[in-house]
Amino acid sequence: MEKIETRKRSGGRRARAANTKPARAPNYRQLRHPFTPQTVFSDDEIDGIHNIALRVLEELGIKVLLPEAREIYAGAGAKIVNDMVYIGKDIVEEALKTAPKSIHLRGINPLRDQIYEDGAMIFQAGAGCPNVSDKKRGRRPGDLNAYVETIKLQQHFDIIHLLGPSAEPQDVPANLRHYAMIETQMTWADKPINVYARGQTQTEQSFEMIRLGFDLSDDEFENGVWGITVINSNSPRMLDIPMAQGLIDFARHNQMSVITPFCLAGAMAPITIAGALALQHAEAIAAIVLVQMTRAGAPISYGGFASNVDMKSGSPAFGTPEHLKLQIGAGQLARHIDLPWRSAAGAASNLADAQGASETANALWGGMMANATLNLHAAGWLEGGLTFGYEKFINDIEILQTLAEMCVKPDGSQAEIGFDALAEVEPGGHFFATQHTMDRYETAFYAPIVADLSNFGSWTENGALTSEDRAVPVWEQALNGYQQPKTGAQVPEILAQYIERGTNAGGAFPQE
Amino acid sequence: MEKIETRKRSGGRRARAANTKPARAPNYRQLRHPFTPQTVFSDDEIDGIHNIALRVLEELGIKVLLPEAREIYAGAGAKIVNDMVYIGKDIVEEALKTAPKSIHLRGINPLRDQIYEDGAMIFQAGAGCPNVSDKKRGRRPGDLNAYVETIKLQQHFDIIHLLGPSAEPQDVPANLRHYAMIETQMTWADKPINVYARGQTQTEQSFEMIRLGFDLSDDEFENGVWGITVINSNSPRMLDIPMAQGLIDFARHNQMSVITPFCLAGAMAPITIAGALALQHAEAIAAIVLVQMTRAGAPISYGGFASNVDMKSGSPAFGTPEHLKLQIGAGQLARHIDLPWRSAAGAASNLADAQGASETANALWGGMMANATLNLHAAGWLEGGLTFGYEKFINDIEILQTLAEMCVKPDGSQAEIGFDALAEVEPGGHFFATQHTMDRYETAFYAPIVADLSNFGSWTENGALTSEDRAVPVWEQALNGYQQPKTGAQVPEILAQYIERGTNAGGAFPQE
Repeated sequence: MEKIETRKRSGGRRARAANTKPARAPNYRQLRHPFTPQTVFSDDEIDGIHNIALRVLEELGIKVLLPEAREIYAGAGAKIVNDMVYIGKDIVEEALKTAPKSIHLRGINPLRDQIYEDGAMIFQAGAGCPNVSDKKRGRRPGDLNAYVETIKLQQHFDIIHLLGPSAEPQDVPANLRHYAMIETQMTWADKPINVYARGQTQTEQSFEMIRLGFDLSDDEFENGVWGITVINSNSPRMLDIPMAQGLIDFARHNQMSVITPFCLAGAMAPITIAGALALQHAEAIAAIVLVQMTRAGAPISYGGFASNVDMKSGSPAFGTPEHLKLQIGAGQLARHIDLPWRSAAGAASNLADAQGASETANALWGGMMANATLNLHAAGWLEGGLTFGYEKFINDIEILQTLAEMCVKPDGSQAEIGFDALAEVEPGGHFFATQHTMDRYETAFYAPIVADLSNFGSWTENGALTSEDRAVPVWEQALNGYQQPKTGAQVPEILAQYIERGTNAGGAFPQE
Repeated sequence: MEKIETRKRSGGRRARAANTKPARAPNYRQLRHPFTPQTVFSDDEIDGIHNIALRVLEELGIKVLLPEAREIYAGAGAKIVNDMVYIGKDIVEEALKTAPKSIHLRGINPLRDQIYEDGAMIFQAGAGCPNVSDKKRGRRPGDLNAYVETIKLQQHFDIIHLLGPSAEPQDVPANLRHYAMIETQMTWADKPINVYARGQTQTEQSFEMIRLGFDLSDDEFENGVWGITVINSNSPRMLDIPMAQGLIDFARHNQMSVITPFCLAGAMAPITIAGALALQHAEAIAAIVLVQMTRAGAPISYGGFASNVDMKSGSPAFGTPEHLKLQIGAGQLARHIDLPWRSAAGAASNLADAQGASETANALWGGMMANATLNLHAAGWLEGGLTFGYEKFINDIEILQTLAEMCVKPDGSQAEIGFDALAEVEPGGHFFATQHTMDRYETAFYAPIVADLSNFGSWTENGALTSEDRAVPVWEQALNGYQQPKTGAQVPEILAQYIERGTNAGGAFPQE
């Protein structure tokens, strides 16, 4: 089989060097949180929540539907009664000892790698959406074309760090869908890849495609994380078959599970912030135990996606005070057990309007104040995840880039303060023409991608467009001028035979 | 003259007790910052910026156009050359010693009082707008009707703490406008009052109206702050006649000036964050000196409104990374000299869309991360302040209420965690019917005022309204069901004679 010329460590760098760079080229690729994490609970309260979670695991137990998973728990000393698993404190302690604090996530372009650890600030686009929506084509079920487009959009903006299952390609049969989703990511992007854990066969075939398409040896594959999956527990206190299987399969291959109880306070979780977090913490720890007992040191991210339900509609709410307190509390719990963790932003709004922007902005700030390692659903999520919105995505990118700019502290040196410039300008004058300004004006300020700062007259003459309207040409240009990463060009050819063989063999249906 | 029956300390409380309260009645009236202030500069850098500001004052000087102000500076030992004032470090030191760290702001309803000090979190609506806009009547020049309406809206929502000059009532002649603006605030609201400093006569007449209308003795008036004004320096390094006059007049009557250099980095201020802050700091200190030399201990707020210009349009930008860094840096400088301070939010957007929401949300979070004592232009500001938007105001109130909810830390006690509830619900079940939920569901979650969390189907059936659309009935209901505070009912009658006499005497024109 032909080698990809631009594979692994070299492709990205070379591909990028050829581009003409704008004067201002901020680096949004690897970010560190610039701010001190905030707290909503005292240390004692956090300790209390942690201890209740341990009691939940030991006394109430977790229902685990997969026999193989129960056997692993039993092997670690957990008590098993039918499908209930009771996990003692000592088992938890052991697991927390081996769970890695720092995880190297690989893109085929090493410039896209992420070190997943406390202090890193990583963003992922809205994920898991059955529908997509844009102002040109309306709202419609997700298909492969939309999936390809939204992967391109995720690749286009450096501020999106990990690829995600933005839109479900429902026109591809469920038994073949993983072929299409993995191939799309490898062909059109060079960032760390998302793999759905929908059964062992799909998972292993997905891993094989990554190894094959990127020409990685087994060792190369297992010595870094190339595939990442989100594992949802069925709150309260249940781990279903595909999810438990995913934890085991990813651990065995040293790939990363992101454990995500979806604890909606007042519905699948206690109505209080502290109660919902206790349940989330227990479920996350149960998954960490399973992973560490499968393979000590295997990568797993602590985390959760806790919010409240709206009392009027019963729907999940996002960017609410409760969501933010749950984010900050979850951050405290993650630091309590000293692990990196995922949070989530999102929006309940049905379109990219002021509500949607406020919801996502609040939840992104919440994740920042909580020092979330990963903030998922950071861009493009509408309707509580039922739709991936193109214009919402573009508007959210603007917020994300604003947050990313906060990572660069302003220079407070004497030269930057510029006493000479201050002396040069007369009272009531202006600084436009000072050398201090001339030296810096091209790069001093963030350049917005969708915000329009023109005055009311010009704005009206230009059609009185909302920022939702203005987002259309932004995503259109990103797609029209799309530059395929060099690493992707030969992937379809390399994978063609593998996929054809798999397809002829009936693919692999999702595990129930 | 007749006494107001419900005056001063009693009115508000009685008026409120009669209302039927909803199950959830959060108190947004007096807030304290819940989070640790963040930093963008090191302590050494802040010291460096402070020292450059002192050099600016001593070596470069401030142009002061009002002779009386120059005399006050001279009396304190400043060097005067023509209209330039050079202020030595020792003078600054003296002034900073007497500038109060805690200022009691009075509403006629004591429940509306604010203690203006480090740690307080106070919001004021968008101010100084020549135009107003709403979806029913469109964009139009501000008039008295709009001013009355926007004062009612500011009064209606507890999260707005200080009244502001939201819309300029341009249908009232400039020489009589202060009568209308003060009377409107006193009649329709009971929060601390905004007084424009547009010349000595207007200021003193405004103070007289407050004393008269609220039946305050001179001592009662001067023993608390009843009137608040924003004073803008003419950056760079200039204080014009009305502004200097305002600082003096307010200080003499022990009322509060909020000094606000408007330092647009790259235009009226150096292009760097550190440089713009050095200029802002120098100008703010110059004003503090004038106030303290006029009357030691007189209330003045440190502050600023620094942002950047958009490099495409030349317009001021808001909610940008630079704006946020300037906010956080300004907070560091305020704490460096140990004074409460004002920041500002705002938006450049021409309507209440996603851009406008992101701009304001970012800048409100910036103010929160900077622990701004007062965040001005917190709701309703469009077009960089050229228009007060009704729908923008309502949407911003939602963000503000979300921030306010963060002030209440979640309860982390064992009862709140609810181990019993966790034990009661089977794996995969739900918490709807647990006693733990039943005891709390009416009050557990913030109830949105404009966010719509219904699903896409219901939302479409209901007309597919944006949150801008949905804000219309919210402000309409606030105005239609408006409850005048008891303190206001007799104000027009009490002031009628005073205003008639003043009007017949030609009113008072703004000072040039």
